[in-house]
Amino acid sequence: MSIFEQYNRNKENIGRLLVKCPDKPGIVAALSNFLYINGADIMESSQYSSDDSSRMFYIRFEFYVEDLLVKRDELEKAFQPLAAKFEIDFDFTYNNIKKRSAIFVSKETHCLLELLWEWQSGDLDTEIPLIISNHEDARSIVEPLGIPYYYIPANKDIRKEVEAKQVALMEEYDIDVLILARYMQILTPEFVERFSNKIINIHHSFLPAFIGARPYERAYNRGVKLIGATSHYVTNDLDEGPIIEQDIERVDHRDNIPSLKKIGQQVERRVLARAVKWHLQDRIIVKDNKTIVFH
Amino acid sequence: MSIFEQYNRNKENIGRLLVKCPDKPGIVAALSNFLYINGADIMESSQYSSDDSSRMFYIRFEFYVEDLLVKRDELEKAFQPLAAKFEIDFDFTYNNIKKRSAIFVSKETHCLLELLWEWQSGDLDTEIPLIISNHEDARSIVEPLGIPYYYIPANKDIRKEVEAKQVALMEEYDIDVLILARYMQILTPEFVERFSNKIINIHHSFLPAFIGARPYERAYNRGVKLIGATSHYVTNDLDEGPIIEQDIERVDHRDNIPSLKKIGQQVERRVLARAVKWHLQDRIIVKDNKTIVFH
Amino acid sequence: MSIFEQYNRNKENIGRLLVKCPDKPGIVAALSNFLYINGADIMESSQYSSDDSSRMFYIRFEFYVEDLLVKRDELEKAFQPLAAKFEIDFDFTYNNIKKRSAIFVSKETHCLLELLWEWQSGDLDTEIPLIISNHEDARSIVEPLGIPYYYIPANKDIRKEVEAKQVALMEEYDIDVLILARYMQILTPEFVERFSNKIINIHHSFLPAFIGARPYERAYNRGVKLIGATSHYVTNDLDEGPIIEQDIERVDHRDNIPSLKKIGQQVERRVLARAVKWHLQDRIIVKDNKTIVFH
Amino acid sequence: MSIFEQYNRNKENIGRLLVKCPDKPGIVAALSNFLYINGADIMESSQYSSDDSSRMFYIRFEFYVEDLLVKRDELEKAFQPLAAKFEIDFDFTYNNIKKRSAIFVSKETHCLLELLWEWQSGDLDTEIPLIISNHEDARSIVEPLGIPYYYIPANKDIRKEVEAKQVALMEEYDIDVLILARYMQILTPEFVERFSNKIINIHHSFLPAFIGARPYERAYNRGVKLIGATSHYVTNDLDEGPIIEQDIERVDHRDNIPSLKKIGQQVERRVLARAVKWHLQDRIIVKDNKTIVFH
Repeated sequence: MSIFEQYNRNKENIGRLLVKCPDKPGIVAALSNFLYINGADIMESSQYSSDDSSRMFYIRFEFYVEDLLVKRDELEKAFQPLAAKFEIDFDFTYNNIKKRSAIFVSKETHCLLELLWEWQSGDLDTEIPLIISNHEDARSIVEPLGIPYYYIPANKDIRKEVEAKQVALMEEYDIDVLILARYMQILTPEFVERFSNKIINIHHSFLPAFIGARPYERAYNRGVKLIGATSHYVTNDLDEGPIIEQDIERVDHRDNIPSLKKIGQQVERRVLARAVKWHLQDRIIVKDNKTIVFH
Repeated sequence: MSIFEQYNRNKENIGRLLVKCPDKPGIVAALSNFLYINGADIMESSQYSSDDSSRMFYIRFEFYVEDLLVKRDELEKAFQPLAAKFEIDFDFTYNNIKKRSAIFVSKETHCLLELLWEWQSGDLDTEIPLIISNHEDARSIVEPLGIPYYYIPANKDIRKEVEAKQVALMEEYDIDVLILARYMQILTPEFVERFSNKIINIHHSFLPAFIGARPYERAYNRGVKLIGATSHYVTNDLDEGPIIEQDIERVDHRDNIPSLKKIGQQVERRVLARAVKWHLQDRIIVKDNKTIVFH
Repeated sequence: MSIFEQYNRNKENIGRLLVKCPDKPGIVAALSNFLYINGADIMESSQYSSDDSSRMFYIRFEFYVEDLLVKRDELEKAFQPLAAKFEIDFDFTYNNIKKRSAIFVSKETHCLLELLWEWQSGDLDTEIPLIISNHEDARSIVEPLGIPYYYIPANKDIRKEVEAKQVALMEEYDIDVLILARYMQILTPEFVERFSNKIINIHHSFLPAFIGARPYERAYNRGVKLIGATSHYVTNDLDEGPIIEQDIERVDHRDNIPSLKKIGQQVERRVLARAVKWHLQDRIIVKDNKTIVFH
Repeated sequence: MSIFEQYNRNKENIGRLLVKCPDKPGIVAALSNFLYINGADIMESSQYSSDDSSRMFYIRFEFYVEDLLVKRDELEKAFQPLAAKFEIDFDFTYNNIKKRSAIFVSKETHCLLELLWEWQSGDLDTEIPLIISNHEDARSIVEPLGIPYYYIPANKDIRKEVEAKQVALMEEYDIDVLILARYMQILTPEFVERFSNKIINIHHSFLPAFIGARPYERAYNRGVKLIGATSHYVTNDLDEGPIIEQDIERVDHRDNIPSLKKIGQQVERRVLARAVKWHLQDRIIVKDNKTIVFH
């Protein structure tokens, strides 16, 4: 029996509040008091005070409000004075408003398959209104699930036209999150800025080792004993965006480049799936070029 | 630079509040408001609501109060009305009052050595006023560190006399925590009850597999591919106390009983060291036969 | 570039020789000499001498023979005198004769999906001529891949009839390996004996902890900090068959039974996939109630 | 009971043969036949054929010869014709001739302590005739064990004089292995070449990430989610030598530079201890800028 059943609660009535503000005495008391007087039970909370000169404070609440669907606007409105007083940068999100994810993929489908598997088994709480690819390889996986598949051939010479089509689709489908599930195309600065902190990539190395192209080949040449994968938000510095999650797998001298790739695929798919899950649960706050991930 | 240096804070002024009470709306607000109006900055907080019919609420605060040494009594006194109102079972602890640990050891010294290493490098925030053993093996390790070493031969026939001596030493040295670092003697129910939730043991298997004697031999006979270790609070059900931490290491068909023991020692020492560290940092709350560990 | 491309070798020409015999001086020399004079290049070899009173010797060779398809019979025939002399229990297998696997599944499809994913990406070197289930849940996953799906309702009252149908299918399709990918039915001793060391099961606990039913519920009640999964050959002692592979995942006090199950599924699918892969590569020798796994 | 007891064998009679030669048909047969006719039982063997254009073959045998102490010279002499025929680069080593290790340390003692612990518990099969440091910090740890402690102050201006003293000590004590257990001095090319593939270093990052100075500070600034350590043979390219072993530990946004260092120390000590153990057991062959590690 889950906590929701125990407490006879409706998952639809769960909301989340993410807060970022200067660290001042009384901020936890003020926030938790606000939630209490507005009928919100705190189910989970995690806080973090920056350990650098910025002296910022971050907190994530998961709360329960009876009839949240009805009271939502009221709650947000009631929060305004507090937000102003403490200079809070905040975000309310609600279980009953699912984020809408677009998955971008090229030829390799292992990350896409993992995401679809987690999605079908109910572990990725998102809508997937479309999948975009510069190849036809994944069509036969996607269409039986009833998800529209957009084939948009891409290369560096037609980048602007390609991205114009993609942006139009993002708008048409009202997309919140762009997941690059091994989408092997470089994005323009304009595209990246438009979807700032909304594009999640998987890089097939343990960053900052092997930034850039052909990481498994370079890992092989260096003779490493572990290979890794890194999921990060995309910024305009190649493979330098805020890291969300990393993991590794052990390899040895018998592994050649094809076997490193095989082993690496196992790491890539689980690292990307975790990063996407945490993003969808609003567990991540970007702080400069790092992430705070509230588990 | 650490957060203490950044904030120009004195580690002596850090306190912790552990709370257990029935889960009621407003409890987080009430507690954080209490800390705020009493001049305590919340540095870290972790909460948990039970997911069973007990509907209990647990929270751990780490807080900073200027001149905590002076204001301590006042703070605890001020907490009484709140504690009464919410039926709170609570514990205030203070960085400047170190817990006092007694380590019990038999012939194998690997766990003892690990604890002493962590202690010397400043990672175990405790006093170690004495070490007790039913063998002389560890004396040469302990005495150069200036820690009194009590050799108390033990066997099942003289258990009561042995424990009487041990209890006297625990009282003489005002001991808060008893660490069984591979102390291979069974304790009487009276002894265990006297130090309830204060005795930390390391069992050399991944409990509940291989409860009881000779776990590596039985692991070998079963042909397992992983061996583990479990640190738990001692209760009067053999190897059934609340589990604090577990970990494992991979083995294969080439490992025989002696090599399983060697590999196991590596797991035992790191599992026990973690469990002891968390206990000393008041990160553990015992809930029935389980632990809540706030990381 | 793989070793096969480097050496300009054809994967079809790879064979494997598994040997089990009393440990006698000269056995390695005799076997490697046999392979040499029969034109077989040793690509990989792993040996193991038992460390108990049985004094048995085990070795696995992976070898390359030009025109293996043609020379196969000759090679096996040439081995007879050596086998007789050293009392060798042996097995020749060939890359170009794929093992034929039947997957059995009930309602939960995560293990099936993982196997199919690995199979489609070329990592499971097997034919999958059919999938059998006592439920209809997996049909929509299986049929688009062109694999026949046999729905055979099962319960303890009709066990014999059910198994008669299954045995008939195993024979019709000439099946070598039976993979129980979370097939939640007990098998009769007759069925198990018929397919001795050919049925691979995944048990959803770190055996021998939580043998039997409802392991996640019992793990929750015990308050363990790690949950595991175990893949083993099926014998007629419930969950007591030779262990092939085990792995674990970390959990904490916040996990309830449903979340333990979710986390456990991730472990189950990767443990089963590894065990199946090793079986298909003839890396496993069963020795009493244990396995030797040559990596 | 160990395999030695089972077989009633004397550990002193164990030898090892490491072989590197062009990959030719019949090499395994020739080598194992050589061992057989010279009365050597093969206890363990591991082989590897290079997967690149070099087409080299590598094998490690662990063997048992009755009266090895007496027959050693004869065995090595008998090997000459075979070595010549197959152009073998080889090494015979013997359990009864222990390698002699010098440990170099600076101020941080965690790696030294780990090595001494493993050594005292019998897991590092080596003599430790001396320990060298450019600081006095470790003296009190070392001298109670009866190991001479040489304090040789060092800095970049006196590098040649310092190394002259060190070389003299290496010769005086007949040292086979130099272990840099967090010895924070750069070595000259002459020194490195003199002890080629004999100097084992521990670098406090997951190489090739964070080559060079202050890796934990840079890991902190990059916001990585895992930190690692790498043990490698020292060459004249900084942190570019052949990697022997790597491992990692998970960190999160709450970790600052001091806590990354603490966590990192745990990884450093276990990675270095493993690498040293494998070196002492002759499990490592250097191949260009990589290692083959036979487990």
